[in-house]
Amino acid sequence: MLYFIGLGLGDEKDITLRGLEAVKRCSHVYLESYTSLLGVDKAALERLYERPVQVAEREFVEERAEEMLDQAAPADAHVAFLVVGDPYGATTHTDLWLRAVERGIPVEVIHNASIMNAVAACGLQLYRFGEAVSLCFWTDTWRPDSYWAKIARNRAAGLHTLCLLDIKVREPSVESLARGRRVYEPPRFMSVAQAATQLLDIVAGRGGSGGVTDTAGVGPDTRCVGLARVGQTDQVVVYGQLADLANADVGPPLHSLVVPAADLHFHEQAVVDHYALRAAPTHAAAEGSAPATPTEKGD
Amino acid sequence: MLYFIGLGLGDEKDITLRGLEAVKRCSHVYLESYTSLLGVDKAALERLYERPVQVAEREFVEERAEEMLDQAAPADAHVAFLVVGDPYGATTHTDLWLRAVERGIPVEVIHNASIMNAVAACGLQLYRFGEAVSLCFWTDTWRPDSYWAKIARNRAAGLHTLCLLDIKVREPSVESLARGRRVYEPPRFMSVAQAATQLLDIVAGRGGSGGVTDTAGVGPDTRCVGLARVGQTDQVVVYGQLADLANADVGPPLHSLVVPAADLHFHEQAVVDHYALRAAPTHAAAEGSAPATPTEKGD
Repeated sequence: MLYFIGLGLGDEKDITLRGLEAVKRCSHVYLESYTSLLGVDKAALERLYERPVQVAEREFVEERAEEMLDQAAPADAHVAFLVVGDPYGATTHTDLWLRAVERGIPVEVIHNASIMNAVAACGLQLYRFGEAVSLCFWTDTWRPDSYWAKIARNRAAGLHTLCLLDIKVREPSVESLARGRRVYEPPRFMSVAQAATQLLDIVAGRGGSGGVTDTAGVGPDTRCVGLARVGQTDQVVVYGQLADLANADVGPPLHSLVVPAADLHFHEQAVVDHYALRAAPTHAAAEGSAPATPTEKGD
Repeated sequence: MLYFIGLGLGDEKDITLRGLEAVKRCSHVYLESYTSLLGVDKAALERLYERPVQVAEREFVEERAEEMLDQAAPADAHVAFLVVGDPYGATTHTDLWLRAVERGIPVEVIHNASIMNAVAACGLQLYRFGEAVSLCFWTDTWRPDSYWAKIARNRAAGLHTLCLLDIKVREPSVESLARGRRVYEPPRFMSVAQAATQLLDIVAGRGGSGGVTDTAGVGPDTRCVGLARVGQTDQVVVYGQLADLANADVGPPLHSLVVPAADLHFHEQAVVDHYALRAAPTHAAAEGSAPATPTEKGD
C-alpha cells in the first residue's frame, strides 16, 4: 500500500486523523520537499509520527521512485508519501500515483487543504477564480511574461487570478553542472514584493516579449492581494496597490499573489478591506480578529 | 473565540489534529448542514468530539447567527462552526466571519480539503481548471443555462470546468409557504446522470434560453468525468461519453461533473483512462488500485 497524504499548509497538526493513522502504519515515510514548504521542520513530524521521515528531494522522486514503489509493493507493506498541501498539487505526484497503479500497488489518497482552495481566506470567492498562473524568477536574459495573457483573460471575464510564486529548492548551479558535479544554489522563494514588481514591469512593457499590448486595466494603483504563509498561525493577508505591494514585507515564505477582478462583490470588498495595507510598526502574527498589518519596507 | 473548522470530505476522521484540538475546547459546536454533505452522521462526530453537535440549518445561519456570536463573544468562550470541506466554500460562511470580526470576536479558520481542490483526484490538473460553475435543478418552467457560456469560454481557452451540482436541503415547499407554515421538501442532490442530461439538453437547444449558439464542441460523444463522494472511501470516478454518463449510476451523493478541455495532456489522459466507464456488474467501492467500475443503469 502506498499512501499519498496531504499535510495541509501549516504545521504537523494540520494532518488529518485519517492521515495520521495511515502514517503510523507505515514502515517508510517520505516527505516531498520541493514543490511547497511546511511551516515546521521534519523533526516535528517525526515526533508526532513516532518514526523517521526521509526527505524526498526532486531527484529522489524523479530518479529513485522505483525504490519507494518496491517498498510499497508487498501485500503487507505500508509506505507513506507526504505532500505539503494536497497530494494532487503537482504533476509529479500524479505521475507517481500512475506508476504505482500500473504496478498493481494499492494506493490511497488522503486529501488536505492546499493554496488552491485556502486562497479564499483573503475574502475573494473561490468560484470567481479563473485559471491560476505561475510566476518564475526572471534573470537578466530570461523574462517570460506569457502568463500575463491568462491574467488579462481572467480580468476580461470578471475573474480573479491566483499567482503561484516560484520556489527554487535544490537547484544545481549552472556552474556546477558545467563541471559535472552538482552543487546546489541556496533555496529561493519569490516574495509578494518580487511578484508585484514583475507584474509592474510587464504592464510597463519591460517583460520578455518586449511589452504586452493589453494591460487589462492593471497599473501601479491596481489593488491586489498578497498572501503569506496561508493556513499558518502567522498568516498575513494584505490588500493594497501593486506599487505598495512591490515594497511590502510580509515576512517569510511561502507567498502568493492574487490579481482580483476589476469589480469585487460588496461582500468580497468588505473582507479585503479588513486587510488593507497600512504603514504600521509591526508585522506581528494575525491574532484573533485583528488583521496583521505588515510594515512597508523602510518603515 | 469562534473557530471555523473545515471537516474535509469524508467522515469524522478527515478533521485535522488542529481542528480536533479546537473543537475539544468548545462549549458549543455547530455543524453547517446545507451546502454540502459529510459521509457520516453527526453521532459519529459527537463520539469523536465527546460533546454534542448542533446541526445548523440554513435558517439558523441566516437568521439566528447572532446567538452563536453571543456565545463566542466572552473572552474565555470557545465556539466551533463546522463546515464540510473548507470553511471558505460558501458565501454565507464569509459573511459569518465578517460579522464575527466586526463584533471584535477573535476568529480562527482551520482549513481542509474541498471539492475545489480534491477534484484533481480525477487526474485532470488543477491549474488547468477555469472558472467553476453551478448547475441547479430544472423545473418545467425554469431551465437556466447561463452557466453554459462559462463552460464554452473555458473550453475555448483549453481549460477544464468543474460543475458543482445542486443540493436542495430543507427547502420549504412552495405550497407550504403559501399557507404560511413551512413544510420541507425531502432533500435532493443532483446526480452525475442528471447533470449530464442537462448538458445534453443545452447543446441540443433545450435549455432555458431556447438554444445556445456555441456548443463548444460538446455533444453526446464528448468524454467527461463524473465524480461521486470524492475523498470518501467509496469514492467513484468515471470517465465516459456524456450520453453514457447520462445513464450511469455512480451511487449516493454528493456528485460532481467535470467538462474537460478538448485536449488532455498525455499525463491527464493516462489517469482518466484508468477511470474509463465500462459496463460491469458491480459498483463496489474503489479498493486499492482497481478503479471502481460503476454499472450503467439497467445492467
